[in-house]
This record gives sequence, structure tokens and C-alpha cells, in this order.
Amino acid sequence: MAKVICAGLGPGDPDLVSLRAARAIGAARQVAYFRKAGRPGQARRIAAELLHPEAVELAMEYPVTTELPVDGEEYNDALAGFYDDWAERLVALPGEVVVLCEGDPFFYGSFMHLYVRLRGRVELEVIPGIPGMAGCWNATGEPITWGDDVMTVLPGTMPEAELVARMRAADALVVMKTGRNLPKVRRALAAAGRLDAAWLVERGTMPGERVLRLAETDPEDCPYFAIVLVHGHGRRPEVRS
Amino acid sequence: MAKVICAGLGPGDPDLVSLRAARAIGAARQVAYFRKAGRPGQARRIAAELLHPEAVELAMEYPVTTELPVDGEEYNDALAGFYDDWAERLVALPGEVVVLCEGDPFFYGSFMHLYVRLRGRVELEVIPGIPGMAGCWNATGEPITWGDDVMTVLPGTMPEAELVARMRAADALVVMKTGRNLPKVRRALAAAGRLDAAWLVERGTMPGERVLRLAETDPEDCPYFAIVLVHGHGRRPEVRS
Repeated sequence: MAKVICAGLGPGDPDLVSLRAARAIGAARQVAYFRKAGRPGQARRIAAELLHPEAVELAMEYPVTTELPVDGEEYNDALAGFYDDWAERLVALPGEVVVLCEGDPFFYGSFMHLYVRLRGRVELEVIPGIPGMAGCWNATGEPITWGDDVMTVLPGTMPEAELVARMRAADALVVMKTGRNLPKVRRALAAAGRLDAAWLVERGTMPGERVLRLAETDPEDCPYFAIVLVHGHGRRPEVRS
Repeated sequence: MAKVICAGLGPGDPDLVSLRAARAIGAARQVAYFRKAGRPGQARRIAAELLHPEAVELAMEYPVTTELPVDGEEYNDALAGFYDDWAERLVALPGEVVVLCEGDPFFYGSFMHLYVRLRGRVELEVIPGIPGMAGCWNATGEPITWGDDVMTVLPGTMPEAELVARMRAADALVVMKTGRNLPKVRRALAAAGRLDAAWLVERGTMPGERVLRLAETDPEDCPYFAIVLVHGHGRRPEVRS
């Protein structure tokens, strides 16, 4: 039975990879990673210094889908075919392969689409990583949650009214998948009375990291690798500072 | 100016410490960690193999508070005095000290109570870690969030009615601070119609790890290092599996 190890790489700084993931990557003679066609890929960049010099690399390039709406059926079919195809190719490999995954593989990771297809067919090991959002709140230099805070993680793709209601209800907030949704996320935060407390973290822990108050950014600027955060303030124990 | 480095240790397995944290710990000639009086402490256990043989160890033992209610003012005063005292002691140390912290220091971590007291007085560096909850969902072998899932992190200390409402609203759920609150958390999950999908993960990634369906556990059994999880199932992209 072949073996597939998914190594969580953490938020972007190669130094934040775990000891176990670094060892698995360094020992691998076959590594695979997702990337957009024609791009070097974030996962490959994070792991670059850890790769074995003789490792065979398999770039799993997402199908070009710019002509299809991302919430349409055709897009989902194209992606499903892509994952089906790569699952077959990984199963057919001789011996062990390490799949490089940004962040934590089980937290909004692309690997899970391979995982459900590989289960029962190969030996599987998933090495957790520091989620991208943790790298982002670390970059702000402020704790995200204290005491009895409730934290909610929202996808920026949600309908605006639902974003507003959920933003009102939570103490600490993390908004993923901002990108083109950023103007909507911003309006929702304003409607929920939380825009002034919101931060935009772009490329957290990576080269070119930027940490900005969301209210002070250009509303037309929608960076791709960005997460929006609102810090909790804790309910107890009380802190005298 | 003295320097305090807080090293996030991850969920419990020493192999899940980051390369940067491992290096900082190995180089440290002074290390400090929280623990309960008379106990070896989880943070010390996780870092044991990484410590420099000549490192001076400072055990920051929580004040004995069993006679005070944990949500009372006296308890908070005792804790505040404890953090005040240790902040002074760390500032007075000669040179650099590494504070060992389980999980991610900025995610419900005790270190933040020192952090707010040390800010501006010493040079501070916080190294993120894999949060305990990520070690727990990894232990279940199932992704916690897919596609457009909303994830909510709740403290088990909340009033039962509020737990129920929030458990109904979220896709993926993480309940922290279970312990003595576990019977209440269990009732709330049942009321929200989510008990059958809930998992109890005890000592995730640590020796003696247990992963159980919450509904099948003994309602009287309230392990201390436990997190309750309900996995999201994703809204899109659709997965054919």
C-alpha cells in the first residue's frame, strides 16, 4: 500500500514549519503541491529550503477556470475532475509522497478533497500546521482571544446580511476569503459597528507582510492573501494593566 | 533592555513545535513556564527534550485558589497579583528569557496576562504555535472546516441557553474549557440537535490521547484536557466522494 503524508506548512514563514513536517519533507523523494497554473506556488516557496535535492516534484495545477463562475456547477465539475485525477496519480506513485499544504490541512485546506478520495486506498498521515489566521493575529501583536471570548471564523463569501448578524454576535472575528469580497466585508463590519476595530493582515508572516487598520485602507484595494481580524477583549479574568 | 520571548509549543506532541520555537528554546539559558503548584506542568513536559542542559528554570506556579470561586473578585485579585509579581521578576532577570506556552500564545493563552504587563518595558517576541484545537481536530482524522463553513469557538463556561443558540447557528464548532462544564455542554448540544455529531478529544496529540463520540462517553466523566468538536460539512465546492 502506498503512503501519502500531508505536511501542514503553517502560515508562510518557513521557520514556522513543525519539526515533524520539516523532517518528513526533508526525507521525501516525491513531493506534490497545489498551485495556480504558471505560478511558483506558496506551498513550494515555504518548503523550498527543506526539500531533498533529489526530490521529484509534482505540481498539481488548478484547472484554468477564469471563464467559469466559481459558484457554478461547471466550475465544481472541473474541480472534482481535477481532484479525481490527482488522487489516481498519487495512488499510482511508487512508494511514499509528501503533499505540501499551507496552513493547517484540516482547516479550509485543499488537501481534504484529495483526502476523501484517498481514504482506504493508501496509508494516510496528516501533520497539523499553524493555521494562516494564527500567523495573521500574531502579526498584529495582539491576542485574538482572552478569557471567555467567543471567536467566529466567517467566509467573506457569505451574504452581507448574514455577515452583519454574525459580526454583531461574536467577540473575536476572523474573516477568511476576503479578496473580491472585501468591500462587502467592510460594509458589513461598519453595519455591525466593528469597522474601527478591524485589521487587515496581508501575507501574514510572509515576505511583504502588511498589517493595516481596515478603515484606513483603500476600499478598492483587495489583496488576495489577506485576512480580516477583530480582536476579542476578554470577559474575565479581569486584567489590570 | 531585557528580552522576553514567548515560544508557542503547539498542542502537546514535542514534534509539533515549530523550527523557530525549538531553536529559541534550545538556545535559552533562562526558561519560565506556568504550572499548577506541585505539578510538573504540560509546557515543561512538551519542551523537555529541547531544553539546554544548563538552562535555569523558573516555574511560575499559579496561586492555590481552590478555596475561592473562579469567577469571584478575590480570585481575580489573586491572579492579578500573581501576574504582576512575575512580570516584575522577568523584567529583573539578566538577559533573555524564553517563556514556554502551550498551544498558540495569542489564542486563550495565559501569557497574554504577562504580555500586557511587559509591553514597553522589555523587548518582546511571540512565536506562534499550533493551537490545541488544531491538534484535537487532527486527532479525529476529519477536516474541521470545508468550503464556506462558519466555525465558532465557544467557552464551555457560557450560560446554557447562549451555548444552545450559538451551537445551532454555526457549521463547525469547537468548545474549549469543558472540564466541569461538560454535562452542561452536552445538554446544550443535545438541545441544539448536534450531540450525535460531537466528538470529545482528550489530551489531543499527547500521550494517552482519547477520541470519543461525546454521546457515548460517561456523562459523569469530565476530563480536564479535553475539547469538544463538531465538524463542518462544507457548503461548496461540492465534493464527490
